[in-house]
Amino acid sequence: MKKTILTGIKPTGQIHLGNYIGAIKPALELAKVAEYRPSFFVADYHGLTKIRDADRFRQLTYGIAAAWLAFGLDPNKATLYRQSDVPEIFELNWILACFASKGLLNRAHAYKGIVESNQQSGKDLDDGVNMGLFTYPILMAADILMFKTDLVPVGKDQIQHVEIARDIAEAFNKNYGETFVLPEYQVEEETELLPGLDGRKMSKSYQNTIPLFEEPKQLQKLINKIKTDSLPPEKPKDPESSTLFTLYKEFASPVEIEAMREQYLSGIGWGEVKKELYRVMNTYLEEPREKYKELLASPKTIDEILLMGADKARTISTPFLKEIKKKIGLLA
Amino acid sequence: MKKTILTGIKPTGQIHLGNYIGAIKPALELAKVAEYRPSFFVADYHGLTKIRDADRFRQLTYGIAAAWLAFGLDPNKATLYRQSDVPEIFELNWILACFASKGLLNRAHAYKGIVESNQQSGKDLDDGVNMGLFTYPILMAADILMFKTDLVPVGKDQIQHVEIARDIAEAFNKNYGETFVLPEYQVEEETELLPGLDGRKMSKSYQNTIPLFEEPKQLQKLINKIKTDSLPPEKPKDPESSTLFTLYKEFASPVEIEAMREQYLSGIGWGEVKKELYRVMNTYLEEPREKYKELLASPKTIDEILLMGADKARTISTPFLKEIKKKIGLLA
Repeated sequence: MKKTILTGIKPTGQIHLGNYIGAIKPALELAKVAEYRPSFFVADYHGLTKIRDADRFRQLTYGIAAAWLAFGLDPNKATLYRQSDVPEIFELNWILACFASKGLLNRAHAYKGIVESNQQSGKDLDDGVNMGLFTYPILMAADILMFKTDLVPVGKDQIQHVEIARDIAEAFNKNYGETFVLPEYQVEEETELLPGLDGRKMSKSYQNTIPLFEEPKQLQKLINKIKTDSLPPEKPKDPESSTLFTLYKEFASPVEIEAMREQYLSGIGWGEVKKELYRVMNTYLEEPREKYKELLASPKTIDEILLMGADKARTISTPFLKEIKKKIGLLA
Repeated sequence: MKKTILTGIKPTGQIHLGNYIGAIKPALELAKVAEYRPSFFVADYHGLTKIRDADRFRQLTYGIAAAWLAFGLDPNKATLYRQSDVPEIFELNWILACFASKGLLNRAHAYKGIVESNQQSGKDLDDGVNMGLFTYPILMAADILMFKTDLVPVGKDQIQHVEIARDIAEAFNKNYGETFVLPEYQVEEETELLPGLDGRKMSKSYQNTIPLFEEPKQLQKLINKIKTDSLPPEKPKDPESSTLFTLYKEFASPVEIEAMREQYLSGIGWGEVKKELYRVMNTYLEEPREKYKELLASPKTIDEILLMGADKARTISTPFLKEIKKKIGLLA
């Protein structure tokens, strides 16, 4: 039997290269594996913990769907849906809440991070925490368990979310008998460290990102801003510790990568590396960028695709929720 | 325009006289007021924070619906539904979570009560707390706000729930403009103190209840157990401090009550009072008890009535949720 794999992206900011390399690209590659049944979703309701502007929210949501499609996701083969089009997830969210101990949520990394930062600045520990922020790991568990997901590709910082989903699923199964599939995670090790403009991990919170669908001129400008050391052109350079080379590896062909490595070792100017990085990046992104712009110009098309995906997703969630409700005693 | 009033009962135990006098009876009386549009619901999903046995859960749920109907609720006039038949409530539950500060929930009475008791017994503060128990005031807010409820009849211990619903509604309205009706509460003052077998407030947690639909013989036995003092029959007695008299007042006619008061003042034996209390109680409960038993024997009939009610409720919740989602930016 095919294994279900699930990937969701939250619409809380413009998609950048780190998202692409860390989540979109590996998920699309996994989707090609014959024994997997891939699902992708826009985790729009997760965005509500932060985004409070309707127009921006809509744009960000369409942006994520358009990005998947622009990079070749085939909505007829995979299931691509918007979380908010699947009401069963939210009913399951409540059911799972009743099987999640509060201690489990107290220990969630994201929440603990906020508490620590509040403590350091002498604020109330729960300052600025809304209940969406506190409870979102339960909603994530519902996202995962609703579709009998076998495998969740994650970044290291998201391992805990899958563990929480397993924990809740086990508590439910223990009481009502085997019901939920216990999901596994697969960590995208290599791509954890895509560097941003300043060499640190590319992340919205560091403001060091390169937006995925930036126009050519702007893309070039951003690449020129990437931090390097001040070695002169003729000096040999270490490719492995170079932000530019790390990025280059993601977009160039194996032959190009080898050639560049040799140039590093024999000496090459940073300006030249940047020019070459821009060239391969832009070549790589040109076509998806056009497709992305086309899609965004026609939100109705995106809506249709997403609703078709939700229909497909609900062929699983609707009967499964009924089965769960019968076990609980909510349905005869 | 008519005002919407909403009453829900959680299926976590057998309905007793305290529930009837404190919630069912006053709600049914309010339902008769011409300017009110009454809604009643079985808060089944709230029961999931505690009940983990499917058969018992089903029985308790049917029991509540049957009790409303047995006491004359007309499902063609009022709206009577089961919470779990209205999926929009659970989607709204998540939306409201994003507008509820965690501090608000930290201060909820029921949760604070558990924390204090854990503290006293030296346990982890959140010991035994599942996330359903911690977050249920948000689900209650969703119950209330989903139907643009104007008025919620409550016991004193539930005032805070309506306040939390108001608080969350205001936070949402502040961001997106007037959307939710701010609900008011109406406290059932007089009925707060229906005494149980031992003279304390009748409550499941004191194990001093008289089940509402007890068979005559068993009812008589329970009444005989009600605590009295040891004054001899001929001594005058104070009706106002007597558990038996307090109960008598709820079921006897005004003429009967006056007669009984006089007998107290001139001297009457406790055995005789108990016999008379049984008589009026049984007369009052006889017909509803028969109707209740009939209904419970035909769960399909109850299901049909509840589903009809859910359809009626959803004529409000479905378009209203769409409106809310548009404001947030989840729908175009």
